[in-house]
Amino acid sequence: MFRTENEFVAWLQALAAPPGHAGGLKLSIGDDAALVTLKGRCELILTTDMSIEDVHFIHRLHPAEAVGHRALARSLSDVAAMGGVPRYALVSLAISKQLKRDWTSRFFRGLLALGHRFGVQLVGGDTALVPGRTFIDVLVAGEVPRGKALLRSGARAGDAIFVSGRLGLSALGLRLLRSHKARALSPPPEAGRLDRQAQAKLPQPPAREAVNAHLYPEPRCALGRFLSKRGAASALIDLSDGLSTDLSRLCEASGVGARLWAGKIPGPLLPDQADSLGLALHGGEDHQLLFTVAPQKRPRLPLKFQGQPLYQIGEIEAARGIRLVLPDGKVRTLKPAGWDYFKAPQLDGRRT
Amino acid sequence: MFRTENEFVAWLQALAAPPGHAGGLKLSIGDDAALVTLKGRCELILTTDMSIEDVHFIHRLHPAEAVGHRALARSLSDVAAMGGVPRYALVSLAISKQLKRDWTSRFFRGLLALGHRFGVQLVGGDTALVPGRTFIDVLVAGEVPRGKALLRSGARAGDAIFVSGRLGLSALGLRLLRSHKARALSPPPEAGRLDRQAQAKLPQPPAREAVNAHLYPEPRCALGRFLSKRGAASALIDLSDGLSTDLSRLCEASGVGARLWAGKIPGPLLPDQADSLGLALHGGEDHQLLFTVAPQKRPRLPLKFQGQPLYQIGEIEAARGIRLVLPDGKVRTLKPAGWDYFKAPQLDGRRT
Repeated sequence: MFRTENEFVAWLQALAAPPGHAGGLKLSIGDDAALVTLKGRCELILTTDMSIEDVHFIHRLHPAEAVGHRALARSLSDVAAMGGVPRYALVSLAISKQLKRDWTSRFFRGLLALGHRFGVQLVGGDTALVPGRTFIDVLVAGEVPRGKALLRSGARAGDAIFVSGRLGLSALGLRLLRSHKARALSPPPEAGRLDRQAQAKLPQPPAREAVNAHLYPEPRCALGRFLSKRGAASALIDLSDGLSTDLSRLCEASGVGARLWAGKIPGPLLPDQADSLGLALHGGEDHQLLFTVAPQKRPRLPLKFQGQPLYQIGEIEAARGIRLVLPDGKVRTLKPAGWDYFKAPQLDGRRT
Repeated sequence: MFRTENEFVAWLQALAAPPGHAGGLKLSIGDDAALVTLKGRCELILTTDMSIEDVHFIHRLHPAEAVGHRALARSLSDVAAMGGVPRYALVSLAISKQLKRDWTSRFFRGLLALGHRFGVQLVGGDTALVPGRTFIDVLVAGEVPRGKALLRSGARAGDAIFVSGRLGLSALGLRLLRSHKARALSPPPEAGRLDRQAQAKLPQPPAREAVNAHLYPEPRCALGRFLSKRGAASALIDLSDGLSTDLSRLCEASGVGARLWAGKIPGPLLPDQADSLGLALHGGEDHQLLFTVAPQKRPRLPLKFQGQPLYQIGEIEAARGIRLVLPDGKVRTLKPAGWDYFKAPQLDGRRT
């Protein structure tokens, strides 16, 4: 571990320097606060997401690089869900004393690799050593042209409901990692190595795709921005806590209900269709986008975006609640059963 | 505790609604991210500070209101140290399962009372229940007119060094709280009640003043802004980790050294002068401002600000390192001995 704060700050400054030039940055890690500029005529987006050991990640299942990647991806996905462009990140990191310096280094490498790819620069944060669990909080500041942010509250009866990709893959990936881990011999190898070994031994897609979706989710910032620019979507949310939960939030904010067609929801394609559907409905952390499109705006929406199909999975209705139409035509009421921090505070025991 | 996230968000939205109107706020708690606007021609200040149970506060010593107040005060003080105006706050809160709903409510009341007084609105955050320690991370976004931010790096040889108030009071307050607690009967009463009882039993100033300075520090935002507007200060930092540590940081950033006059440093006025000086030099969390003033700018600086004297405690020199001139004329080298997260990760054992 680093011996002094100065040593840590110097190391992080060197690591955080981006490959290119950062336009708006005036001052970075090392002063009292970060100082940045935004483009004129933009609104500022601010979002913060925690990643807590044993709640959002498990040290023996998640390699340090993936913990860093996932911690930033959660906030980037929130910016995507506003139709904005992420610009700056601040990372607060309370590192468990039990972790080695190597873990911190790998954590930041994972986080910064994603940040650089999305044009996001690390401009500050806070750090402490703690006796207990590792705790991470990532703040991302982004921008969106004035009046162009896409909110949860704009859905209207008759709008089509779309998702931007296959759902339930992350939850399946976690299940695979956990079941593989359960079979692993003790003493367990290093987390990162275990993960690579685990991945190598897993059957090929969809298993590898699922594990990758869980460890290294790809925020859909370009799509969010596209939907905002085109004026195509009436409401937008990211799928961080599961379709059933996040769609409920969108409907509640918009004062509407929804009808979903189970057969149209793109799941992880398991042989057991009920299992696939369950993962797609309630599995969280896919970080795909869920958005609604008014009938007259449908021509603005392409069939695919960046090579990935956009799936219509249902439509908004005036009557509150979510109705799920099963392949046999029966209709069931769908309750939010995804991630709720007040109901399911522990990673173990959820979503599998 | 709250049963669902919705319940918590609704409660927090009601609580966070400010008494007045929030000019720049477009969208608050409840969407994917906060959306805010800044004044034109301003730069954005971003700062984040963690408050961790058993590191930054102790449940039995610090009432929930004080934990909330102190958590926000740390970030407000960072904005003050840039000469900026704080505008928005995001709070990430991982609440220990052992705490009751009442604690969370009191925590936010303490935080919001300070926020409202400083015109800062709570616009978002993240929340989780955790099995271990309570963890808080507060992000504050502020603004400063373009080019007007006061950095740590502007001090030059010959500049006078000022502090904005008495130092070491917070460390003394913590010591008093702790020694009183050590004498308290078991079982201990509620933290908040203990604190009020403890305060009532303590002798009058400076003890009460010290306990209050520790529990409810007052960020010096108005002074920071004044120094920026007047162009009076060449460098500015807030005293969060102790004079010896924070002055070292300012000197390092500016590439200079300093000479301090021990007899001029305003300490907590204890009968034991060496003890007073030690607290003033190394005690943290006073959140006063430390700033440097070039000789030709001295006329821009008033003797007092908001009724509180500004103390010149030394001067910047070209030679690196900090030299402390004792009352008997002897000169000692002063090493940073304040708060360093990498050296002193535990609240117990430091600063007393």
